[in-house]
Parts: sequence; structure tokens; C-alpha cells
Amino acid sequence: MNTLINPRAYDSTPSCRVAFIGLGVMGYPMAGHLAKAGHEVTVYNRTPAKASTFVAQLAGADKLKHANTPALAAADADFVFCCVGNDDDLRSVVLGDHGAFAGMKHGAVLVDHTTASASVARELDAAARERGLHFIDAPVSGGQAGAQNGQLTVMCGGEPAVFERARPLVMAFARACVLMGPSGAGQLTKMVNQICIAGLVQGLSEAIAFGLRAGLDMTEALDVIGKGAAQSWQMDNRGKTMIEGKFDFGFAVDWMRKDLGLVLDEAKRNGAALPVTALVDQFYADVQRGGGSRWDTSSLITRLR
Amino acid sequence: MNTLINPRAYDSTPSCRVAFIGLGVMGYPMAGHLAKAGHEVTVYNRTPAKASTFVAQLAGADKLKHANTPALAAADADFVFCCVGNDDDLRSVVLGDHGAFAGMKHGAVLVDHTTASASVARELDAAARERGLHFIDAPVSGGQAGAQNGQLTVMCGGEPAVFERARPLVMAFARACVLMGPSGAGQLTKMVNQICIAGLVQGLSEAIAFGLRAGLDMTEALDVIGKGAAQSWQMDNRGKTMIEGKFDFGFAVDWMRKDLGLVLDEAKRNGAALPVTALVDQFYADVQRGGGSRWDTSSLITRLR
Repeated sequence: MNTLINPRAYDSTPSCRVAFIGLGVMGYPMAGHLAKAGHEVTVYNRTPAKASTFVAQLAGADKLKHANTPALAAADADFVFCCVGNDDDLRSVVLGDHGAFAGMKHGAVLVDHTTASASVARELDAAARERGLHFIDAPVSGGQAGAQNGQLTVMCGGEPAVFERARPLVMAFARACVLMGPSGAGQLTKMVNQICIAGLVQGLSEAIAFGLRAGLDMTEALDVIGKGAAQSWQMDNRGKTMIEGKFDFGFAVDWMRKDLGLVLDEAKRNGAALPVTALVDQFYADVQRGGGSRWDTSSLITRLR
Repeated sequence: MNTLINPRAYDSTPSCRVAFIGLGVMGYPMAGHLAKAGHEVTVYNRTPAKASTFVAQLAGADKLKHANTPALAAADADFVFCCVGNDDDLRSVVLGDHGAFAGMKHGAVLVDHTTASASVARELDAAARERGLHFIDAPVSGGQAGAQNGQLTVMCGGEPAVFERARPLVMAFARACVLMGPSGAGQLTKMVNQICIAGLVQGLSEAIAFGLRAGLDMTEALDVIGKGAAQSWQMDNRGKTMIEGKFDFGFAVDWMRKDLGLVLDEAKRNGAALPVTALVDQFYADVQRGGGSRWDTSSLITRLR
């Protein structure tokens, strides 16, 4: 292919046999990008119908298969990608009797895109080494839109040589894929991201709720202050919909609580003080109790209006 | 002057007689821009030496005077600008026996750039009307650098017709000057700005402190997450120096506490809930007690390291 015409990194990547475990809102489009990049993709999903649909819907379906267990999906793969719900799901699809590690061939790499704990990343990395396999923790940011557009940011932990092998494939659905350090460092970087967002969205929520009570035209107010020291991606992209009370733009409160749980667990281990992050976690619990589990994270403002 | 060559709005503004009260780190360069724009500027400062220095240092000093009281400074002015410390200072220089209102001629406009309460703005607006004068509350953002570069954002409250008269002059030191509503609306908008910053800087502080404890290269981590949903002006402009522990970039903790005090007072009146803003105000009290009164606002992180 002509790399001058198409800038995607995967155009110059040789076709590989890969597996993808977990066809959720993130995994489904990520697996699609791998298939479109020319790789032979075998998919596994807990709900088999989803895997069948995936195979049926993609062009070039001759290169696509679905398998009934993670082990079977992973059997011929050079790289196994994984994107499931949490630590327990991850242990199940990787370490279970029919998990990926039971099927992977010597020297194959498991790239885990689940947002999970740094400790499960280290546990799976150790388990991989025992079996002559490799493991990279690789949580993503960019949300469903980023997965669909192939514009995710991928934060990785693991061995540099293994990372370098995996990166060209990951770039099928990423705008950036960076090695942050040893096993677990990808997860820790994702935690840093979520801590920033927690305090930031709460501050923005308090500001908007205050301004509305004060009788300001908050759309205009955010426009005026939005080029200075108060500016944020959240203000630019969620301010207007927070004022309007619309909260259906992606990353759900339930998922944020899961991520903040990982953050607070890690902080117990490393001794970091997270007073506002812990408080915002509790505020999200309020939102859940108020029926907002599926609203996006900007729904923090609903507690204040 | 040729407005095609020089884009500054003041180039097409007729020269006026103006007064400037308060030559602090903000007022000094703001008054300078008014003088450079061709206005005849009479200045007053509580410390007279500063006013003399101001007059001596500027080119075109024949158009500059300093006066010994706000009333004398304001006597011939069409517009009186003011930028002092707090509500009490403001009442003193405006309403005192030798205050600006005692000297201003009928129909003149006082534009107050002090960050003050919305209630003092309304009080001074009412006092102006009684005397046949006009008042605009016009707090700024953009800091000392913005004042020096003439790139402040000015948030105004007052009568539209009065605002329109004042705006061309204000644009001598602003990139934006916006009417947000009736008297007090400028101050309320500035409060919204400070509420956003409080939660945001605390979230960023917790994230950086957590990441450093977790052993991450935080410069790289902020670079990786800084294009997505965690991005903020504070991350872009203060992240690196927060990691390095440098806190000498302008807006001091003492001033932030003053502003958050105004915010929390106003919230008592309008019933807004500001749980994190109130907490961050207390955290800034910790920073003050630790000797950081003159550090910039990003020094919140010192509590966590």
C-alpha cells in the first residue's frame, strides 16, 4: 500500500493473526479497525451473538472468525487483544481454564485494553512470563468516539521490546500509543487521567450551578472565561450540555465509579492523599442513587441544581 | 491612525481625559496602555511614589499627571478607572471624603477593575446614580502578563449604553470586554472563573502527586493525557512547574483566598452548594500556614507531596 496516500501506521504493518476478546462498545470498533488493517481476526465475546454479528457485518469476512472460548480465539494468534469490564472479568478470560493463556502459543503477546488495577496487570504479566508469553497493560482514553474513529490514546506498561512489537498493530485504532514504564504503568497513567477529570468536572459543575443561581447567562459566561486559566476540555466539550442538563455523551457514571475505585485502592497502597477525588467518588454515588448510573460523567452537576 | 496597520481598537478611539486609581501589578500596566493609546491620564496611588514613578517613566509624559487624592485625579475625567485590593479599599477610594465620586463631573463613568463582591458593585452603582454618575463593575482575568501585554479579559456588569461608551477605552488593555448583565454581573462571572480553577487545580494536584508516588514520569504522563478529556489550561501551563515544585508564576495564594472568600459569601446569599470550592479554600489556608502566601495558585500540590 502507498503510505504517502494513507497515513495510518497499520498500512505498513504486515498482516498478523490476532484475537480480540470482548466486543463491548470499545472492543467492537477496535477489533473492526484491526480487521480493516488487514489482520486475520478471531473474536470471542461472552455473548456469542455479538461475535457472530461482528463477523457477519465486516467486509472481508473470509479473514474473520469467531471462537467459543478465549483459549480457542487465541490459539493461532501472534497478538491477543482484550477489552473487558474489570479485574475479575480479565482474570476469567485470561487465566480461566478456557482463558487466553491456556491457548496462546509460545512468545505471543496479550495486549490488555481493559481499565483495571495495576496489581492485576503485574499479576498477569508474571503469569505470562511463567508460560513463555508476554503481557502489556494498555488502557485507553478517548471513549467510544475515539474507538470508532481510531483515535484512542493508549497508555502502556511492559517490556520495551514487546511494546515495540505490539505498537504498530495498536496504531490501527490509536492516535498515540506510549510506553509509560514497567508492567502496571499504563494503568497508573489512566488513573492519573481519571483523577484530573474528577476534580475538574466537580469544579466546573459548581461553577455552572453557581452561575445559574446568580442569574448569569452561563453559555456566554463559559465563552468569556473559556480562553483563560479556567479553560478545560470538559468546559469546551461538556459545558453547554451541562447547562442544558443533557448527559448522554459517553463515559457512564457507573464506569467512572469503577475507575475511581481502582484509583482509591491504589492510593491506599502508595499512600497518596486524594481528598477531592474521594469526595467526588461519593458524589457520583449520589448520582447513581438518583438514577444517573448511565448518564455521562458531567452529570455531577445534577447534585447541585 | 491607520487601523489597517495597527489592529488595536484604541487606535480609532478619540483621546479622552481619564483617571486611573490604583497602580498595583495590574493597574500600573493597564494605565500605561491607556496613556500609550493617547488618552490624558491622571493617576492616583495610595503610595504616592509609585504614581510619580509612573508619570516619570512613560513617554509622552506631558499628557500625564498625578494627583494627591482620588477626587483630584477624577476631577476632569470622562472615565475613571480603578483597580484596588478589595471591597474596603474600593469603598474608600470611591466613596470617601476625597474619593472619586466626590470629584467626578456629571455623566462621567467609573470603571472598576477590582475583583470585589457583587454587592459592593451594586452599592457603588446605586451611589453613582444618586450623583448623576455611572458605574461599571469590570473585573479582569489574564493576570499580570495579560495586563502587561494588553490581553486581559474584562467581565462587565452595568447599563448597556454606558458599557458601550467605556468599551473602546477598556480595549486598550484587553483582548475581550463583554457585558455580562446588570450591575454585579461582571463580579459574578469572575467568581465562576475562580470556582472552575479551584476544583481544577486541586484535581490536577492530586493527579500529579499520585503519579509521582506511583513512580510515573509525570512530564510524559501529562503529555500523553493532555490532549484528551483531562486537558486544561492549568495542565498545559502549570503542570510542568507543579512537577518541579516552582510556584512563582503570578496569581498569589493570598489573592485566591480573597477571591474564594467573595465566592463563598455570594454562595451564602444565593444558596449555591460549593463543597469542593469550600474545601479548596481551606486547603489554600494550609498553604498559607506553610509559608506559601505569595506562591501562585498551583502551589496547592505542596499539601500533597
